[in-house]
Amino acid sequence: MTLSPTHASRPQEPAPGPALGAAVMDRLAALAGFSGDADGLTRLYLTPAHKAAALAVAGWMEQAGMAAGLDPAGTVVGRYEGARADVPTLLLGSHIDTVRHAGRYDGNLGVVVAIAAVAALHAAGVRLPFAIEVLAFGDEEGVRFPVTLTGSRAVAGTVPPAFLEARDPDGVSLAQALRDFGCDPLALGRAARDRARILGYLEVHIEQGPVLEAENLPVGIVTAIAGASRLAVTVEGRAGHAGTVPMRLRRDALAAAAEMVLAIEAAACATPDLVATVGRIAVPRGAVNVIPERAEFTLDLRSPSDRVRREGLAGILRACEAIAARRGVAMRATASYDEPAGPCAPWLMEAIAEGVGRLGLRPLRLPSGAGHDGLALAGFCPIGMIFVRCAGGLSHSPAESVAVEDVDVATRLLVDVLRHLDPARLPGRA
Amino acid sequence: MTLSPTHASRPQEPAPGPALGAAVMDRLAALAGFSGDADGLTRLYLTPAHKAAALAVAGWMEQAGMAAGLDPAGTVVGRYEGARADVPTLLLGSHIDTVRHAGRYDGNLGVVVAIAAVAALHAAGVRLPFAIEVLAFGDEEGVRFPVTLTGSRAVAGTVPPAFLEARDPDGVSLAQALRDFGCDPLALGRAARDRARILGYLEVHIEQGPVLEAENLPVGIVTAIAGASRLAVTVEGRAGHAGTVPMRLRRDALAAAAEMVLAIEAAACATPDLVATVGRIAVPRGAVNVIPERAEFTLDLRSPSDRVRREGLAGILRACEAIAARRGVAMRATASYDEPAGPCAPWLMEAIAEGVGRLGLRPLRLPSGAGHDGLALAGFCPIGMIFVRCAGGLSHSPAESVAVEDVDVATRLLVDVLRHLDPARLPGRA
Repeated sequence: MTLSPTHASRPQEPAPGPALGAAVMDRLAALAGFSGDADGLTRLYLTPAHKAAALAVAGWMEQAGMAAGLDPAGTVVGRYEGARADVPTLLLGSHIDTVRHAGRYDGNLGVVVAIAAVAALHAAGVRLPFAIEVLAFGDEEGVRFPVTLTGSRAVAGTVPPAFLEARDPDGVSLAQALRDFGCDPLALGRAARDRARILGYLEVHIEQGPVLEAENLPVGIVTAIAGASRLAVTVEGRAGHAGTVPMRLRRDALAAAAEMVLAIEAAACATPDLVATVGRIAVPRGAVNVIPERAEFTLDLRSPSDRVRREGLAGILRACEAIAARRGVAMRATASYDEPAGPCAPWLMEAIAEGVGRLGLRPLRLPSGAGHDGLALAGFCPIGMIFVRCAGGLSHSPAESVAVEDVDVATRLLVDVLRHLDPARLPGRA
Repeated sequence: MTLSPTHASRPQEPAPGPALGAAVMDRLAALAGFSGDADGLTRLYLTPAHKAAALAVAGWMEQAGMAAGLDPAGTVVGRYEGARADVPTLLLGSHIDTVRHAGRYDGNLGVVVAIAAVAALHAAGVRLPFAIEVLAFGDEEGVRFPVTLTGSRAVAGTVPPAFLEARDPDGVSLAQALRDFGCDPLALGRAARDRARILGYLEVHIEQGPVLEAENLPVGIVTAIAGASRLAVTVEGRAGHAGTVPMRLRRDALAAAAEMVLAIEAAACATPDLVATVGRIAVPRGAVNVIPERAEFTLDLRSPSDRVRREGLAGILRACEAIAARRGVAMRATASYDEPAGPCAPWLMEAIAEGVGRLGLRPLRLPSGAGHDGLALAGFCPIGMIFVRCAGGLSHSPAESVAVEDVDVATRLLVDVLRHLDPARLPGRA
C-alpha cells in the first residue's frame, strides 16, 4: 500500500512497502547478538551487552536522521526535530533490556519499529508539526536490580531516591552501574522532561497474550495497562493421619485451598476485564499420608479498571472467607503488591484506530495485562500502545515469535499514525 | 471391678484394680528413656536404643513369668506356657520401634499392656487352655531401612529375601544390623511359626484417630486394617502470562488439579468406609505471575474393604479424567503403592466385644486406617486388634497422649478376653 500525505504542506514520499517489516526483523536479529549469555539472549540493565545494544541503537537512530545520546538513566534517546523549533515532542519507544533466556521481540521490537518509522519519514523528507524522540529504555524487566522502570520513571521525574542504592546480586549498586555505563547518577533529575512540552508517549510492543492470534489480527489498540494486586494466602486447618481420621472430622487445609482456587477462577470468569491467577501452591512439610495442616498459595489479580480490580478482590476475599468459615479453617491474605492501572489516552487510542482503519483492518481494542514503561509515564503524559500479534501468546522465552508481515503492518501503522497526528487538533491544545 | 473366673477349673485370683493402668504408664515412661535422640524419643530398628528397650522388655517378660529371648529378626519373644504342653499358642504384642520425635504410646503401649496382662494371670496363678507369646516387634515404622514389618513378616515366614540387602542412609545393610544386634540373619527362616499351632494374633494399639474420642469410649474393636492405594497424579496444561491470557483461553493445570482435589474429597465423603487424602501438591517452577503449566499431587486412598477401595479409586480416576477432558489438560496417575486390607477374624472381634460388654461399655467397631504388624500376619493367622482412645487422634508426635484410665480399661479388657477364650469353642477347632 501507499502512505498518502495528509497535510498539503508535506512533500510527496515513496511507498515504504512490505520491505519495512523485513528490515526491522534484520535489525532484531542483529540486536539479539548482544547478550550476556553465549547460548541465548540475556541482556540485563547496564551490563556490557546492554551497552553494546545501546550503541547499535544509537547508530541506527543517527542513520534515521536523529541526534542520539544517552540520558542519565542509560536510556538511548534519539531526537527527530519537527517542522518548527517550538513544536511539542511526541515520545516513541520501548525497552532494550531483556529477561534471562529471552526472546528477541519483547521491548526490542518497539524500539526498532520506532526507529524504522522515523527513518521512513526522514527518507521521505517529512517534518511533522511535532518533534519525535525515540527512547530505548534499559530497565523494564527489573531483573538485575530489585527495582524496575528506572528509565521511564526518570523521564517522568519519579525515580525514588532509594533506587540508586539498590544492589544487584554481586553487590554492585545502581549508582555504580550507571557510572560504569557512562552515566552520571547525580544528574538523574535532568532526565525528567517538561510535561508541557510532551504530546504523549506511544509504544509498539508484542501482545504477550493470545487475543490477537485468536482474533486473527496483526495489531491491536491497547486501552490500558492493567493494574495488578498480588497476595499471599495462607490456610490453616488441622493435621491428621490420612488413614485414621474420618472425612467428616477433617479440617483439611488443602481441600479448603482447592475450593478457594476454584472460587477465584469462577469470580474472574464471571467478571469482564478481570483476570486472576493462582500461580503457586504448597503444603509446607506435606506428606502423602498426612492430612494437610497448612496450605499456601499466591494470587495475582489484574484489570485495566482499578474499580473492577478492587471490587473483584473484595469479592474473592469474601468468597474465600466463607469457604474457610464453612470448613472450620483459618485463612489469612496478605497483599504484597498493588499497582494502579495506566489508562491509555482516548485521543491516542482514536488516532491509532483511525490508522488501523486506513490499513483496511478491524480496530480491536484490548487491555495490556502485562506491565510496560507506559505505566511509569501514565501519570506524566498521555500514553498509547500498539500491540503486535505474537505466536501462541508466548513471551519471556526463546520461543517468542512474530511474523514479518505483522511487523510490517505495525511499522506502516506507526508511520501512518505519526503522519496524521496534528497537535493543533488535540484536546487541551486546540 | 473384679475379674470373675469363667472356667470352674481355674483358681480364684485377686482383683487387679485400676492400678494396672498406672503400672503400664510407669513402664511406658521408663521405655521412653531409650532413645537415639537426647531431646525426644527416636528409637529406630536395630539401633542401640532399640537394644536397650528390648532388654528392658525381656526383663519385664521374665518378671511376668515368661521365658524371654530374641528371635532372628530382633523381635523380643516372651512365652507363657498354657495349662498343658500340647495347647496352641495365642500371639499378643505390638512394636517397640518408633518414628523420629515420636510419642511414647504408639506400639510400646501394646507390648507393655500384653506383658501386664500376662503378669496379672501369672500373679493369679492362672494357666489357660493355650500358651501366650508376647511379641515386641522392631520394624513396624519402617523408618531406618526402606523395608517395613520385618519382625511380623518373619513370624509369618514372608520376609522377601531382598530385605536383608536393604541399606540404611549410612550404608549399613539390614543383615549387618541384625548381626550387630546379636541376631543371625541367615536364621531368619527359623522365626517363622507353624500356623497349625497358632490360635491367632491380638494387638492393643492407640487408635491414632479421633473416632473413640468423638464417641466418648476408652476402647474400640478393630474390624480390619485398611488397605491402601497411593498414587502420584500429574496434570499438564499450558503456561501463560498471568496478565495477558483471558480466562476463557486458559488451560490452567492448577485450577484443574484443584477441581480434582475437591472431586476426590467428595467421592470419599459419599462412600462409607473410604477415606482419601491429597497430602502434597506443587506447581513445579511456578511463579506468582505465570499460569501453571503443570501441577502434581499425591493421592492416598484407604478402606477396610478392598472392593470399596478399588471401586472408589476407579470412580475418582474417572472423575479426574472427565475434569481433565473438559478443561483441555492432560492427566496421568501413577500407582506407587497398593496394599490389600487385613480383615480381623470375626471370632476374635466377637471375643473382644463380649469382653467390652462385660466391662459395661458399648462395643464400638471401627476400622484401622493406619497400618500395623497385623497386616503382615493377616494372611498367616486370625488377627484382632483393640484400639485405645488417644487425645485428639494425634500420633507420630511428642504430643501423643493417652489417659491412664483408658490404659487401665484396655489392660483389664485384655486380661478378661484372655480368660474367656476357649480354643475348643473356636471355629475350625471344635
